[in-house]
Amino acid sequence: MPVYPANKMMKISVNANCCELSPIRKFHPLAVAAEQQGLRIFHLNIGQPDLPTPSAFYDAIRQVPNDGTVAYAPSPGMPELIGAVERYYRGIGVDLSPADILITTGGSEALLFTCLSILDPGSEVIVPEPYYPNYATFIRAAGGVIRPMQTQGENGFRYAGREELERMITSKTRAILVTNPGNPTGTVLTQGEMDMLARVAKAHGLYLISDEVYREFCYDPQAGVPTMATLPGLEENLIVIDSVSKRFSACGARVGCAITKNPLVQEAILKFCQARLSVATLDQIGAAALYDTDPSLFRQARAEYCRRRDVVVQGLRQIPGVRFTIPQGAFYLMAALPVDDTDKFQQWLLTEFADQGQTVMFAPGAPFYATEGRGVQEARIAFVSSPPELERAIVLLGLGIAAYNARR
Amino acid sequence: MPVYPANKMMKISVNANCCELSPIRKFHPLAVAAEQQGLRIFHLNIGQPDLPTPSAFYDAIRQVPNDGTVAYAPSPGMPELIGAVERYYRGIGVDLSPADILITTGGSEALLFTCLSILDPGSEVIVPEPYYPNYATFIRAAGGVIRPMQTQGENGFRYAGREELERMITSKTRAILVTNPGNPTGTVLTQGEMDMLARVAKAHGLYLISDEVYREFCYDPQAGVPTMATLPGLEENLIVIDSVSKRFSACGARVGCAITKNPLVQEAILKFCQARLSVATLDQIGAAALYDTDPSLFRQARAEYCRRRDVVVQGLRQIPGVRFTIPQGAFYLMAALPVDDTDKFQQWLLTEFADQGQTVMFAPGAPFYATEGRGVQEARIAFVSSPPELERAIVLLGLGIAAYNARR
Repeated sequence: MPVYPANKMMKISVNANCCELSPIRKFHPLAVAAEQQGLRIFHLNIGQPDLPTPSAFYDAIRQVPNDGTVAYAPSPGMPELIGAVERYYRGIGVDLSPADILITTGGSEALLFTCLSILDPGSEVIVPEPYYPNYATFIRAAGGVIRPMQTQGENGFRYAGREELERMITSKTRAILVTNPGNPTGTVLTQGEMDMLARVAKAHGLYLISDEVYREFCYDPQAGVPTMATLPGLEENLIVIDSVSKRFSACGARVGCAITKNPLVQEAILKFCQARLSVATLDQIGAAALYDTDPSLFRQARAEYCRRRDVVVQGLRQIPGVRFTIPQGAFYLMAALPVDDTDKFQQWLLTEFADQGQTVMFAPGAPFYATEGRGVQEARIAFVSSPPELERAIVLLGLGIAAYNARR
Repeated sequence: MPVYPANKMMKISVNANCCELSPIRKFHPLAVAAEQQGLRIFHLNIGQPDLPTPSAFYDAIRQVPNDGTVAYAPSPGMPELIGAVERYYRGIGVDLSPADILITTGGSEALLFTCLSILDPGSEVIVPEPYYPNYATFIRAAGGVIRPMQTQGENGFRYAGREELERMITSKTRAILVTNPGNPTGTVLTQGEMDMLARVAKAHGLYLISDEVYREFCYDPQAGVPTMATLPGLEENLIVIDSVSKRFSACGARVGCAITKNPLVQEAILKFCQARLSVATLDQIGAAALYDTDPSLFRQARAEYCRRRDVVVQGLRQIPGVRFTIPQGAFYLMAALPVDDTDKFQQWLLTEFADQGQTVMFAPGAPFYATEGRGVQEARIAFVSSPPELERAIVLLGLGIAAYNARR
């Protein structure tokens, strides 16, 4: 057996060190321990829709003969899926050519490759806060940093006006990244707000990254199916992030896309697509079939989530001291709870609380903010389970708050 | 319609600009045009095995009920797949715990996340040259640079000795990255060579990234199933890249893994795994089933590729002036052709050559080298089609070389 001399210190990259492990993971051991003690946990903490994936997904995959080779797909995506995405966009008034669509392993990979394509070390990305925490990792992977644009729950998490936004722009600002409808806020941008963002992006030569994976989930009939992709003159600036995950309740398929008409960005993203070879072949076949399912699916899913939102809203109104804005879209709301610290409160709910053998989980708010100290009393609540489960979950939250605050 | 002012210049990241589009893509339009003119192209240019994927993959996926939700899998991978990988490694004498295995979207994602986890801008990675061209993109995505360790075809592409290797190490060197068996060379490292690399990595505090996706494809019975993972004392240094793509002829499943016992590297890679949420669920179910297929599959596949290698070797020996080393593993060999420039020769083969309405494609050698001017007369030849097709492809190559050189 060879003997090696002692190791020197091994280094982890600065960027990886700056990223955070999932804040949800932190509570996983406590949740497991609670369940082992027989506690039932009601989950308001995860964004995994429980609606069934349309059977077209499974059926298309089952039709693939089982005696062939599961071969690499083309790096930019399979032509049948690109064609399906193109048709879908035509249906919402957006004219795309196949080169504008790069199929990715979920919206996540589209975001990562976009960041790697347009950010240099030190580049700044303006992101409305609170935001989806994984944005921080994708931006940091490219060496970029988030410049949070603060929004306030009392004000429905509406974005800052043009002047305030422009004051944030420096020589290092490379992009504005928005989620519309918003995660974790459920805020849906108005046409005027989208237009303002577009004007600022154009005027300052910034990329506008619009993460629209919740696009089909707007609960105000006036909102329609909002997208930046219909705005004129944004060919060079706009990168739309899309995914089948939420739209078709197919999160585990890991099929998304980056959409841009900027040929240099197309080429840069394509370089990363080519290096990683391809997106899973069977999932692309299934995803293409999803786009051919009856569009009434969207209406049904929207109606179901709207019902769930209303259940959560009604429940939260019964809890003294809880403040929130009714979400206009997506599956989430960000609520201010009358507790000192939602992180501590969550831990307490898993270790010291139970009502009829049941407790509840949410996502503590601080990781949704870059600004130190913000979100400490907030919780993201996802409404992706059945109305009776949601109802009980909110009752448990109320009982928990009362017991937590009565404890001293 | 709003009118926006003119755009400022939009920037692409320095790292993306440093990456290359796939060199193979360059010939794609020419190949399409040739086929449209009725030419049949024999492919020696791609690494897509044509052996069927074991039906266990399809069958496991078909058993998933078609009325449920295709949900996110756990970020580090599904327990059943991690367990299957663990059992496979136990079978080749490597003791792993589940935390040592991070399931990724192919070996490609494992490489990208490894680079993002351990490289800072300017970090150097020593890579034996010629190498798999996509390494350049993964390393560059993290801001790192390749320091090529030159190997020579005349010498069977054997690695440099310890002293020469150590002379390449600078304060910026962070890792040594090897492919074993080698792509594009087919070179299989001896136990002594692996041991030398391990000693150097230990002595200088370097990561040793061992891409072992071709591990099962060694044609010398003495070689066995080579892996760095059995070397002692490398817990902090070693990161093994693995994949089901070649092993089970399932490239389009996009299931691989990064394996390391270094807890800091595990945590860093896990951060990126969590940010991208999960690997495709159905593919993980299929991949887990692949690991339970009859191990005689490996023997059969190895025998088939060995037969193909021999067909290619015999054919190439008939072509005057072609020089190559018989590959000991993987599906490739790097041949020096008696032409001025294999890139020009490939272009000519697609536009000006045909024999009985047929022509041939290979991968020109220069993109496999970082050193300017190397590989210009070389071609990577992949033996992943049937023996009669390979035989004809090599005959076409010989006829092409003769006609190309007779042309002036």
